[in-house]
Amino acid sequence: MENFEFYVPTKIIFGKKTEEKIGEILKKDGIKKVLFVYGRESIKKIGLYDRVVKALKESGIDFIEHSGVKPNPVLSHTREGIKKAKENKVKAILAVGGGSAIDEGKAIAVGAKTKKDIWKYFKGEEVIETALPIYTILTLAATGSEMNGFAVITNEETKEKLNIASEHIFPRVSILNPELTYTVTSQYQAYAAVDVIAHIIEYYFTCKVCPNLSNRISEGLIKTVMETTEIILKDPKNYKARAEFMWSSTLALNGLTRTGVGGGLFPNHLIAHALGGIYDLPHGACLSIVIPAWMSWYKEENKSQFERFAKEIFGVSSAEDGISALKNWFKKIGAPVSLKEVNISEKEIPEIAEKGYNIAKIWGIENLYSKEVIEEILKKAIK
Amino acid sequence: MENFEFYVPTKIIFGKKTEEKIGEILKKDGIKKVLFVYGRESIKKIGLYDRVVKALKESGIDFIEHSGVKPNPVLSHTREGIKKAKENKVKAILAVGGGSAIDEGKAIAVGAKTKKDIWKYFKGEEVIETALPIYTILTLAATGSEMNGFAVITNEETKEKLNIASEHIFPRVSILNPELTYTVTSQYQAYAAVDVIAHIIEYYFTCKVCPNLSNRISEGLIKTVMETTEIILKDPKNYKARAEFMWSSTLALNGLTRTGVGGGLFPNHLIAHALGGIYDLPHGACLSIVIPAWMSWYKEENKSQFERFAKEIFGVSSAEDGISALKNWFKKIGAPVSLKEVNISEKEIPEIAEKGYNIAKIWGIENLYSKEVIEEILKKAIK
Repeated sequence: MENFEFYVPTKIIFGKKTEEKIGEILKKDGIKKVLFVYGRESIKKIGLYDRVVKALKESGIDFIEHSGVKPNPVLSHTREGIKKAKENKVKAILAVGGGSAIDEGKAIAVGAKTKKDIWKYFKGEEVIETALPIYTILTLAATGSEMNGFAVITNEETKEKLNIASEHIFPRVSILNPELTYTVTSQYQAYAAVDVIAHIIEYYFTCKVCPNLSNRISEGLIKTVMETTEIILKDPKNYKARAEFMWSSTLALNGLTRTGVGGGLFPNHLIAHALGGIYDLPHGACLSIVIPAWMSWYKEENKSQFERFAKEIFGVSSAEDGISALKNWFKKIGAPVSLKEVNISEKEIPEIAEKGYNIAKIWGIENLYSKEVIEEILKKAIK
Repeated sequence: MENFEFYVPTKIIFGKKTEEKIGEILKKDGIKKVLFVYGRESIKKIGLYDRVVKALKESGIDFIEHSGVKPNPVLSHTREGIKKAKENKVKAILAVGGGSAIDEGKAIAVGAKTKKDIWKYFKGEEVIETALPIYTILTLAATGSEMNGFAVITNEETKEKLNIASEHIFPRVSILNPELTYTVTSQYQAYAAVDVIAHIIEYYFTCKVCPNLSNRISEGLIKTVMETTEIILKDPKNYKARAEFMWSSTLALNGLTRTGVGGGLFPNHLIAHALGGIYDLPHGACLSIVIPAWMSWYKEENKSQFERFAKEIFGVSSAEDGISALKNWFKKIGAPVSLKEVNISEKEIPEIAEKGYNIAKIWGIENLYSKEVIEEILKKAIK
């Protein structure tokens, strides 16, 4: 195993009706005023908005609303949130929604405690030194943002989709009630499954030492994500499946699967972010297009790990068959596996590769992911 | 899945030479004076004592020594430590050693912040409200104490072995360098493997809902513990095996395998603690005697889980064959599997059962583990 640090200070409160505890949790932590960050109508439709407001009022927690977070949260709206947080002197962020609301909430938490421009932190020009405490109630299990120190924001002007990473933006408490995900559509459940699998296989395939322990944990998570997704697509209100999917999605990106593997690049996310920055496609759809292409391109670099994946996950013996099986599974659940399916033509590849290369530079892996390499990978995803 | 909370705020610093960072870690946290808790000669033999002292001095950290912690840490020595901590106004505990040093360190951390008698907390008569911050350097991978909120202490006068459990006694930072476990003897490695497997199977077999996800994580950990132990017994300085064993032992009891299973009693530990309280046997040896007996006694209560265990871990089909295979594996690594092997006769069983029943009362499970039941289980372990 390679040396590593593992630090995940978020408290998870998991299960039915747990969202009703939000008021008392904030009160116990001495927080009297929060910025309540959420998207649009979905939390109102399921009655969650009312339950949260009731819980806050019962505990005497004052709140300022910041709604309208987009599925790929954008910088301009984040800046509005920072302004509100400062003007109203809120003491914490309460993000209610999926990864988008949480990510925007995290960025606001950082921005509210600094006079510097928030985008500088995403560009890697400033280091995060503090943030408001963050509390979350999760309604879409996918990104893992509820238990990690990452956040992704899109700058609409420059069409850049970049991330921040810091110990200061781990949520203090995240509430996970699987029932709140019952209304996630089949399409979004499919994208979520792709995203979670992507988080696991990024580390799994780019590992330097690939310990059996992390392999086993990763494979256990992938198997659980696949079997529960198939159940959810047939039976959206299956609590057991929603619950196991939800907890798998959280564990998939809280650092656990990464421990001791060394390496751990995020090349599929790199290219998917480049795509998502330009086209405003769902993140999971970008990933399901990129992953099979990247796997085909990369497989010889870590052959035994690809063969292990094929055998453990799909019971097939070659790396190629494992890749085909995963691609077929993406198709089966309704996720796109080619650029053609989302109406992107070959001639648009250079622009995507250019954006990808810019991300690679910020991540310090431009030597591995040049414009030409990204083009080569994307060409495998044309149809 | 059953509702659960998961909160593990300990920062793990894992890998080669990580112990050299202890001075700077304490300094960064603003700690200027610690109680340095350890056992006897072993940390001096491997040069660790000198390296720790050097690291503390280089960072200007003052320290008071509290050495002589016993393998089953005892109350009288814990009380001495509490006295030293109070007299010297230390600001934190630095425990260097195995679970014993860490557990005694945790108890001292609690005792140093209260005027009440520390044993009352073990008897369940007082609730822990605060504790000194705890830092650890681990030299024996087994108990998981480096990343959990438990501590076990033996009262030599009353021959009671009891535990405390609190969020306040999670170590703040634990340093895990697998090289520091190179000198753990074959015998103690075997006991350690039994202890780690015990931590996993307690939850695994007493689960109420037994989600696939936690089953898979548990099985991955058990397989890793078994394969790495076999390597370690042949090749004690195999870094890869020591590292995977060490991290498995930490994950085995940090709450991860327990998430969503409901239930989660610790009956094998209950009986093993009763044995250990009277006979001063190594904890792992008590467990390897109790586990096969308890499994035989309990198997019908959770039949499918026992069959799953048999198949996944040993590739056999019946619950009985799985139990035999585990018992044989304990024998193979040199752990005792009967009371006879440690010179305890049938006529001593009632006294052990009496102690066990007293623990059951403190844990609130005396309805399940009466004196008669514990006698019945122990009778299966006679020879």
